[in-house]
Amino acid sequence: MAGNSFGQVFRLTTFGESHGAAIGGIVDGCPAGLHLDTEAVQRELDRRRPGQSDLSTPRKESDTVEILSGVFENVTTGHPIAFIIRNADQRSKDYDKLKDVYRPSHADYVHEAKYGLRDHRGGGRSSARETASRVAGGAIARQLLKAALGVEINGYVSAIAEAVLEEPVESLDFSLPENELRCPHPATAARMRTLVEEARDSGETLGGVVSCVVKGIPAGLGEPVFDKLHADLGKAMLSINAVKGFEIGSGFAAAKMRGSEHNDAFEIKDGKPATSTNHSGGVQGGISNGMNINFGVAFKPVASIKKAQNTVNRQGEAVNVEIGGRHDPCVLPRAVPIVEAMAALVLADHYLRNRTVKL
Amino acid sequence: MAGNSFGQVFRLTTFGESHGAAIGGIVDGCPAGLHLDTEAVQRELDRRRPGQSDLSTPRKESDTVEILSGVFENVTTGHPIAFIIRNADQRSKDYDKLKDVYRPSHADYVHEAKYGLRDHRGGGRSSARETASRVAGGAIARQLLKAALGVEINGYVSAIAEAVLEEPVESLDFSLPENELRCPHPATAARMRTLVEEARDSGETLGGVVSCVVKGIPAGLGEPVFDKLHADLGKAMLSINAVKGFEIGSGFAAAKMRGSEHNDAFEIKDGKPATSTNHSGGVQGGISNGMNINFGVAFKPVASIKKAQNTVNRQGEAVNVEIGGRHDPCVLPRAVPIVEAMAALVLADHYLRNRTVKL
Amino acid sequence: MAGNSFGQVFRLTTFGESHGAAIGGIVDGCPAGLHLDTEAVQRELDRRRPGQSDLSTPRKESDTVEILSGVFENVTTGHPIAFIIRNADQRSKDYDKLKDVYRPSHADYVHEAKYGLRDHRGGGRSSARETASRVAGGAIARQLLKAALGVEINGYVSAIAEAVLEEPVESLDFSLPENELRCPHPATAARMRTLVEEARDSGETLGGVVSCVVKGIPAGLGEPVFDKLHADLGKAMLSINAVKGFEIGSGFAAAKMRGSEHNDAFEIKDGKPATSTNHSGGVQGGISNGMNINFGVAFKPVASIKKAQNTVNRQGEAVNVEIGGRHDPCVLPRAVPIVEAMAALVLADHYLRNRTVKL
Amino acid sequence: MAGNSFGQVFRLTTFGESHGAAIGGIVDGCPAGLHLDTEAVQRELDRRRPGQSDLSTPRKESDTVEILSGVFENVTTGHPIAFIIRNADQRSKDYDKLKDVYRPSHADYVHEAKYGLRDHRGGGRSSARETASRVAGGAIARQLLKAALGVEINGYVSAIAEAVLEEPVESLDFSLPENELRCPHPATAARMRTLVEEARDSGETLGGVVSCVVKGIPAGLGEPVFDKLHADLGKAMLSINAVKGFEIGSGFAAAKMRGSEHNDAFEIKDGKPATSTNHSGGVQGGISNGMNINFGVAFKPVASIKKAQNTVNRQGEAVNVEIGGRHDPCVLPRAVPIVEAMAALVLADHYLRNRTVKL
Repeated sequence: MAGNSFGQVFRLTTFGESHGAAIGGIVDGCPAGLHLDTEAVQRELDRRRPGQSDLSTPRKESDTVEILSGVFENVTTGHPIAFIIRNADQRSKDYDKLKDVYRPSHADYVHEAKYGLRDHRGGGRSSARETASRVAGGAIARQLLKAALGVEINGYVSAIAEAVLEEPVESLDFSLPENELRCPHPATAARMRTLVEEARDSGETLGGVVSCVVKGIPAGLGEPVFDKLHADLGKAMLSINAVKGFEIGSGFAAAKMRGSEHNDAFEIKDGKPATSTNHSGGVQGGISNGMNINFGVAFKPVASIKKAQNTVNRQGEAVNVEIGGRHDPCVLPRAVPIVEAMAALVLADHYLRNRTVKL
Repeated sequence: MAGNSFGQVFRLTTFGESHGAAIGGIVDGCPAGLHLDTEAVQRELDRRRPGQSDLSTPRKESDTVEILSGVFENVTTGHPIAFIIRNADQRSKDYDKLKDVYRPSHADYVHEAKYGLRDHRGGGRSSARETASRVAGGAIARQLLKAALGVEINGYVSAIAEAVLEEPVESLDFSLPENELRCPHPATAARMRTLVEEARDSGETLGGVVSCVVKGIPAGLGEPVFDKLHADLGKAMLSINAVKGFEIGSGFAAAKMRGSEHNDAFEIKDGKPATSTNHSGGVQGGISNGMNINFGVAFKPVASIKKAQNTVNRQGEAVNVEIGGRHDPCVLPRAVPIVEAMAALVLADHYLRNRTVKL
Repeated sequence: MAGNSFGQVFRLTTFGESHGAAIGGIVDGCPAGLHLDTEAVQRELDRRRPGQSDLSTPRKESDTVEILSGVFENVTTGHPIAFIIRNADQRSKDYDKLKDVYRPSHADYVHEAKYGLRDHRGGGRSSARETASRVAGGAIARQLLKAALGVEINGYVSAIAEAVLEEPVESLDFSLPENELRCPHPATAARMRTLVEEARDSGETLGGVVSCVVKGIPAGLGEPVFDKLHADLGKAMLSINAVKGFEIGSGFAAAKMRGSEHNDAFEIKDGKPATSTNHSGGVQGGISNGMNINFGVAFKPVASIKKAQNTVNRQGEAVNVEIGGRHDPCVLPRAVPIVEAMAALVLADHYLRNRTVKL
Repeated sequence: MAGNSFGQVFRLTTFGESHGAAIGGIVDGCPAGLHLDTEAVQRELDRRRPGQSDLSTPRKESDTVEILSGVFENVTTGHPIAFIIRNADQRSKDYDKLKDVYRPSHADYVHEAKYGLRDHRGGGRSSARETASRVAGGAIARQLLKAALGVEINGYVSAIAEAVLEEPVESLDFSLPENELRCPHPATAARMRTLVEEARDSGETLGGVVSCVVKGIPAGLGEPVFDKLHADLGKAMLSINAVKGFEIGSGFAAAKMRGSEHNDAFEIKDGKPATSTNHSGGVQGGISNGMNINFGVAFKPVASIKKAQNTVNRQGEAVNVEIGGRHDPCVLPRAVPIVEAMAALVLADHYLRNRTVKL
């Protein structure tokens, strides 16, 4: 109801505010018998962590995860896996001057409208810091999918402002080490870097697109009506801070296509039905068809710019605000592990849900 | 789990196959004391019904809804409101020749992959006919929102293939009678008509975009983490047949914007905070901010074209299929009431959920 | 939220009032591939139906069930199975004089306190007529359990007022035809009959106990913390009209026992662990242990007696009420199929839930 | 699904094993604006804690709770309230010799049957230690009920083996300090003490009954069909370790009563309907009627006796086991705060659910 849980069988519940004692979560419903690599969980958190390069906030958070339950002798027991990440390097005082101000395009105003009060320190529960818990939970889902089905999930930055990756996804090589833009095409990454540096130096922020391709999902995951696989993926992505749009397969481009052009013809490959094109993005009628799942996620430029802005305060007065704190000019590279984590959560959940559909 | 329910407090569960005895649903959680206008429910179904104009399928279905429970002396009692719509004018035999064939970009193959069998008549549970139940349930939600908050929901066709409505939403007049394209801009509607006629006559299908604006939602609806208001709207829309993308406010265009350009400055209007622009689309941090809620939904061209196509059958043989039946060249106009219904379901649910957040 | 659904994977949602157009429900989550015997569903309804013998209400309701969806060529498709039972033989006018009166120990007053209004005809949603929908849904669950696991569920009346069945459950023969008391011990049934006849003739009502034994549940069903198997069974039974108590295995008698007496020693039977006694009632730590599941359900005497009673009305006045209508002197025999149905719903749900717990 | 959450709006999810790093939980859905007394939360934990008197286990656990989120300046924010209790004084080695043994009437065997493995240290997830998390979560629910409605919840031990409290609940004085038996009748408490001392000295364990009375619940809480208030209370109680039965109001005694005797006549008290008797136990048709809510919970004698027992091991061999560790001869006094906590969770949840039922 309060919306801090995600998933039905494989279910993550997160907690924690940006400047509280800790953030963390509980994964309930992870099957027993999974050998859990806790270092791999930490590695995913390190990919999301602030301060990884000169392009991101200099805020330092080690984001060290501690697993408290549900794992015995490195194997999951079927019981809830709780984890916490202690907060550190908080500069709550940076936010004192903002406690009565509604920052433009932040959640300050709506929190007060909803709850009658708010924890004004660092965005509180609406801080993107919450997504670290998703990354930890998603890392467990990912290991389940890998162990059970051999699934690979590869997110990447496909656009930052005007720097757009034009190459088709099939041509991208995800076996190479990630660059700091998380764009698997060096020339485009270089263009992205230039834009981000400009934004950083001018106190500006940039939007963009994270794309994701998932390989190894068998046909049959997803439910045919409300819980279509891409509907749940869409919700997952739209629940990430700063996301404004989601598309699967052909996406918005489909609006301009004809049926004869868009339909994916079936053929037999390796002894089973496959499609010769993949406008469907791996999902038909809400159910995976065994092809790669492709989707894109649009991020707005984040709201914390380093420029004076007009706004109002709690007292209803017009004020001018300059947001301090230490923020990213472009969150897209750090958003990649979040997108992957949310994809893993959706897919792990549907993988388990699908175990109950046949006699 | 099986995904035939939508919503947490205001909850619709639907049932029924295209060629079974009936479709219908149960609305659970509608508050007691709402004067229910059952004719208004029927009117929404009439807007979705096939055979409304020369641009849609000649298939005739009266789609008469019968309400079975939960209403006493025209007022809701707080108990489940069940309704059924008997199926009629079924030509199940049209589908007999398709029972072993996997139609391209239909759900035939994935149903068999998932369940081990399928009801091949008319798409079964994956038929868009299921959305009639959503329209009926959504019509109840809409009346709740109107009675409780004065909410107005206006969907419209903003693009069919190359015919794109360019006018800003603020300039559209929703008080005029709907035209058969459901595009509130006559010149654009005329261009759309031409394209649909061409498609109809050539056995082709067209995609497009349905946009929607919701007025009257107060600040505070939506949950800050997973159940963000636009995440639930996105899931709702992506669960509609043939939808490939969703965006709120600035949407995918945000990916190319700068933060200083995208941020919505607050000002005081009518004594309370409002924003001077609305790139946020009425939702910030997942919570409504009192501005209009704007979103767009991309539809692919539907898969039932009247041309021969290559595909495979259950036996793994390559076959050529020509789909009979009676189908729409472009479903966008009929999709408008479905989009509105799903929006109403999401908003009614969050309206009720929001009653529990303060002491 | 509004509590008209039961179960998580195998999920029944019911609707309908005693004197509305119809009652019915939707079973969502029944696996595909189950051969569904619809006559067996009807037979269960016939066991619950009023008017079966001279000991029950003369009210006639044929309670004919119509299945609307989810079954194709007599096999479940994995989609929602909706069913309706039209109401008939309503004498709503019998209730007109009661529309302002709060009948003692009925739900009249609490409905108004909760909803601000009520459908006063025949108890509305709180009528035991609602349980017919449970019996229909439970009959489907029962067939699933039989097909998948060979489960047998046998409920029986073990006490009516002072007539108490003393024989141990192991000695009862459930292969014999049911008598009209549904007590599988003729001598006790005869004593029960005498008491029920006396009650019928004096306008009185009687309470009692329904017991139930379930054979064939494998070890492993149920969850170890909140959703213990017997906790879900308990909730299921306590949700039946007129139930005041539930016990599993040793039940309240356990309160007087010593640990050394109560513990069920393990031994090896047929090559696997079994217990030599069964004080646990087939459930240990909330999880089935493979032994028979035994539980008991206490029913109060129903509130509709044929005697003048003191009460108050909506206007706050003291009034004397004599309840008309046609009611059972003792509902216990008709409660047996309801208890069995609710048991089947719980067990089918946990059977499916249990499919997700191991890698 | 995995059953580690309880409640729908006010929702507690618990985690943790007896001998892991920590136990704890997340309360989601607690309304914003509640002044939270964290010392009162700790006091409830202290009531449950082992080692409070010479009648309970000498095992020492300080059970210090740390709240990690959801509270800002001592007031709840509407966001998840996470808390942890670090484990201490573990003697995991005590359990090494038991790792292949299925202790009689413990959950060892069923865990292995269900999950294929188990954390054998101290009962793992099935240890009653898990209930500390319930007590912490319930203490928050209790403060909500007190602040919003003035509710008082009083649990007490009404029977230990043959020592049964015969006084009616109305005569008990809950304003006195608790004695170590938590029986508010000194003479009965003395008889209980004698029995517990005997059990302790002979390595035996005792069952009993915890009763509970709740004052201040207004009419209208609870849902009329599956989620009846007493059905949810029953599930809550039956989910507590060692519980074998639940009854509300007249309970199993109702089975022997006549309707004319059992019906609670309405009269007007303080200007509103009240009942002159309370066989209903404060709940009619599943909905609270404004009277005191009374229920009883039967506990079996716990399984950890200090006597040699026959059982089998994982290898299928008959073995003799003597359980070491430090256990309570009678858990009833320590179960009182658990019963109260579970009652508070149910009632807080239904209090919030009930906010959505009227227009």
